[in-house]
Amino acid sequence: MKNFTALVFLFLVPFSLFAQPKTIVFQTDFGLKDGAVSAMKGVVMGVNPTIRIFDLTHEIPAYNIWEAAYRLEQTAPYWPEGTIFVSVVDPGVGTERKSVVLKTKSGHYFVGPDNGSLTLIAESLGIQEIREIDEAINRRRNSQNSYTFHGRDVYAYTAARLAAGFITFAKVGKRLPNEVVKIPFQKPVLEGNAIVGNIPILDIQYGNVWTNIPADLFKKLNIAAGQKVKITVWQSDKQVFQGEMPFANTFGEVPEGQNMSYFNSLMNFSFAVNMGDFSTKYGVKSGPEWKVRVEK
Amino acid sequence: MKNFTALVFLFLVPFSLFAQPKTIVFQTDFGLKDGAVSAMKGVVMGVNPTIRIFDLTHEIPAYNIWEAAYRLEQTAPYWPEGTIFVSVVDPGVGTERKSVVLKTKSGHYFVGPDNGSLTLIAESLGIQEIREIDEAINRRRNSQNSYTFHGRDVYAYTAARLAAGFITFAKVGKRLPNEVVKIPFQKPVLEGNAIVGNIPILDIQYGNVWTNIPADLFKKLNIAAGQKVKITVWQSDKQVFQGEMPFANTFGEVPEGQNMSYFNSLMNFSFAVNMGDFSTKYGVKSGPEWKVRVEK
Amino acid sequence: MKNFTALVFLFLVPFSLFAQPKTIVFQTDFGLKDGAVSAMKGVVMGVNPTIRIFDLTHEIPAYNIWEAAYRLEQTAPYWPEGTIFVSVVDPGVGTERKSVVLKTKSGHYFVGPDNGSLTLIAESLGIQEIREIDEAINRRRNSQNSYTFHGRDVYAYTAARLAAGFITFAKVGKRLPNEVVKIPFQKPVLEGNAIVGNIPILDIQYGNVWTNIPADLFKKLNIAAGQKVKITVWQSDKQVFQGEMPFANTFGEVPEGQNMSYFNSLMNFSFAVNMGDFSTKYGVKSGPEWKVRVEK
Repeated sequence: MKNFTALVFLFLVPFSLFAQPKTIVFQTDFGLKDGAVSAMKGVVMGVNPTIRIFDLTHEIPAYNIWEAAYRLEQTAPYWPEGTIFVSVVDPGVGTERKSVVLKTKSGHYFVGPDNGSLTLIAESLGIQEIREIDEAINRRRNSQNSYTFHGRDVYAYTAARLAAGFITFAKVGKRLPNEVVKIPFQKPVLEGNAIVGNIPILDIQYGNVWTNIPADLFKKLNIAAGQKVKITVWQSDKQVFQGEMPFANTFGEVPEGQNMSYFNSLMNFSFAVNMGDFSTKYGVKSGPEWKVRVEK
Repeated sequence: MKNFTALVFLFLVPFSLFAQPKTIVFQTDFGLKDGAVSAMKGVVMGVNPTIRIFDLTHEIPAYNIWEAAYRLEQTAPYWPEGTIFVSVVDPGVGTERKSVVLKTKSGHYFVGPDNGSLTLIAESLGIQEIREIDEAINRRRNSQNSYTFHGRDVYAYTAARLAAGFITFAKVGKRLPNEVVKIPFQKPVLEGNAIVGNIPILDIQYGNVWTNIPADLFKKLNIAAGQKVKITVWQSDKQVFQGEMPFANTFGEVPEGQNMSYFNSLMNFSFAVNMGDFSTKYGVKSGPEWKVRVEK
Repeated sequence: MKNFTALVFLFLVPFSLFAQPKTIVFQTDFGLKDGAVSAMKGVVMGVNPTIRIFDLTHEIPAYNIWEAAYRLEQTAPYWPEGTIFVSVVDPGVGTERKSVVLKTKSGHYFVGPDNGSLTLIAESLGIQEIREIDEAINRRRNSQNSYTFHGRDVYAYTAARLAAGFITFAKVGKRLPNEVVKIPFQKPVLEGNAIVGNIPILDIQYGNVWTNIPADLFKKLNIAAGQKVKITVWQSDKQVFQGEMPFANTFGEVPEGQNMSYFNSLMNFSFAVNMGDFSTKYGVKSGPEWKVRVEK
C-alpha cells in the first residue's frame, strides 16, 4: 500500500512537469528585418522552453502607439483567457513612463509601457488589476546598464516568468490604481438621425476603411441591405470625403469597382471599393484624429 | 493485482493527454501588418493549446488564387502526412463558393474555399476525399453574424478541431464528388523536339523564372550541362522573350550577370540571370496565362 | 516488488518520450513571400514534431553574407545554450564552399555554409568544434539530384536530427580545424584620443547607425552624458559624414529632430536623429567597408 501511494505520487510528477504554461503573444514596431524580435523570444526560451510564443504583428508603424492600441483591441478577444500579450511600441523607453502588467476582466494579461497602448483594451475588456513591474526583481540578469531595450530585458522576461508560473501576478510589482494612460478619440454616439464615430484603422491590405461604430448601434439607423448610406469623413476639422453608397452583407452583392459599406469581421461599420482601394482613391486614412458621420 | 491494473491504466492517461495533435499550417493574402492572422491562431489555441501552428506565407498577393494554389503545391510535399493546411485567399467570401476540407492521397488535409486554390494540389497529390464544411456544427460560437472572415470563424476553427481530434474527418460535413474547381493552365508536354509548359511562379526574391516542366521530361531533349537551350515566353498570345542560354547544374558554373537555365529546388526547369533579376530585366512574369517553349 | 520495478520503468518512459528536444532558429535571405521557409520547417516536423522552431529573420538582403553574420552575432547570445541556428544565405550553393556545423564555446550550434556567415559569431562566442556535414548520411532522402536548396535538403534536415537527438554532434561528419572563412572589417581600437571601428549594421527600422565599439571601450574617452562627441564616417576611403553631437543615456534626454549618440541595446556606441532617420539624412550605410572614428 505504501508502494501504491508512492507510485501515485510518482505518477503525478509528469502532470506538473507538463502542465501547460501560458501562451505569450508579441507585438512591436521593430519589423522583422533584424534580430530584435528573435532576441526577445530567446529570452523567453531561456526562462522556460515549453512556453508557446506567437506574434500579433511586428509591423506597427514606428512609434505609432495608437495602432498598437488598436491591434490589441482587434485581436485579444480571440485568444483564450490567460494569454499574455507583450506590446512594445515604446518611443519613451528610458523615460518616466511606467512599465506595467494589466490584467483585464476577461483574464488576459498585457505587458508593456503604459503610454496609451492600453487605451482601447482597458475600455473594451475592462481593468481587473494593474501592477507596475518592479525592475529590481523582474529584469533580465546583468541588463541594468541597457536603457533602450525594455522589450527584451524587462517585458519579455517578466512575461516569461509569469507564463511559466515562476512568479504570480502579485509578484510583478506594486498595485496601481485601475487607470491607464489614454489617447482621446471620438467614441461612437447616436446624434439625432446620424451616428458619429472614429476611423481607428484601415484594413490596409485591401484599403478598406474601418470605423468603431458597432453593428448594434448602426442598426438604430434602420438601413437595410441594399439601401444607401451617406458617409462624411473629417481629419480633425477638415472634411476629406462625402458620398453615398449601398450597405451590403457581402462583397459579392456589389459590382467590382463600386463603393459599398458593410460590417467588417469585428462587426463594425466599414466601407470600401469592392476589389479596389478606398483609402488611396479618396485619401481617407485613420487615427485618433479621424472622425466619421453616418446617416440615411 | 487490482492495484497493478489500476496503475497501468492511470499510467496510460498521460499518453493520451500528450498525444501529438496534428500540425496546422496557415496561408493567406492578409499580410502581417494587422491582427487577422493572429486572430485565427488565437481561435486555434482556444480549441487546444497543444496544436502546433506554422505559416506557409501570408504574402500571397491580394485575391491571387493562382498563387495560393502554387504555394500549396510547392510546399505541402515537404510536410509530414497528417499536416492540415488552412488556405484563405477568398475574394468570394460570403458568396456561394463551397467551404471544404480536401484529404489528399498523400494524407495531407487542405481547409478553405473551393475556388481554384486546390487546382494544383488536387492534381499532384491526388484527391482521396472531399467534404463540405457543415457550418451548422463547424463554426466558431456566436460568429453567425460575421460574413467576411471565414478564415477565423470557420476554417481555423474546423482545422483546430480536426487537429485536436475533437472531430473526425467524416464529421467535417457531407462528402462531395472527388472534384475541385480548377484554373486552366498549360500542362508540360513534349511537342516534337520541344517542350511547352507554364510559368506558374517567379522565384521573386531573386527574380528567377520557374516553369512547370519537370527534370524527367526536360531530359528527353538530351541537353547536357553546358549546352545551349532556346527559350520562348508568351503571355497569352503575346511573345515576351526569346533567347538562348546554357543549361547548368549550379549557379557557380556560370559567370555573374549571364543568363542561364537550371533545375530549381523542386526539380523543375527554370531560368535566371546569375546574381541578377531575369524577371525585371526581360519583363517575364508568371500566372496561368504564361506559356513557355523550350528546345535545343 | 517485481511489479514495483516494472511500474517505475514504465513510468520513466514518458520522460524520455517527452524529453525536450533542442530548439531550432532559422535565418535566411529567402523572404516570406514563397514556400521556401515553410518547406524547411516541414522537413524538421517530418523528422520530429516536438522540435521547437523559431525565426531569426528571413529578410537578410539577398546574398548579403555580412548581414547574416551580424544577425547571428546580435541574437544568439540571448538564446539558451543548446539552441541550433540554421543560417542559409548561400550564393555559392552547389559550389565548393563547405557545409558545416559550428559548436561555439557558449554551447550554441550554427548550421550552414562556411562562407563568411560565421565571421562574427566565431569570434565573439568562440569556436569549440567544427564539423563538416557528411552528405552521404546527413541529407534528406531522395534529394541527391537537387543542387540548389541545401537549406531544405541538408541544413534543416541535419539540424532537425541533431535537435531530436537522432545523431550526436560527432555524427555530423568529420572534424575540421577550428577556423572559419572570415570577412575582413575594422575591429574597434583605441588610437590615441580616438576610437576607430566599423559600422556593421543600421537599426533599419529607425535609421539609427550602430558601431561595433563596445561601451567599455568608449568609456576610455571619458565622455559623460550630455557632453559632445565628434564622429567621422568613411565608406572605404571616402568620408561620408563628420559632425558633433551629445552623448545621451536615453532618447528622452534630447529634443526631437536632434542628432545624438548613445549605447544601443547591445551596449555598443551608436548614433541617431532622435525620432528621425540618420541614415537617410546623411547617406550613412553599413557593411564591412564602413569605418567610424569617435573622439571628444
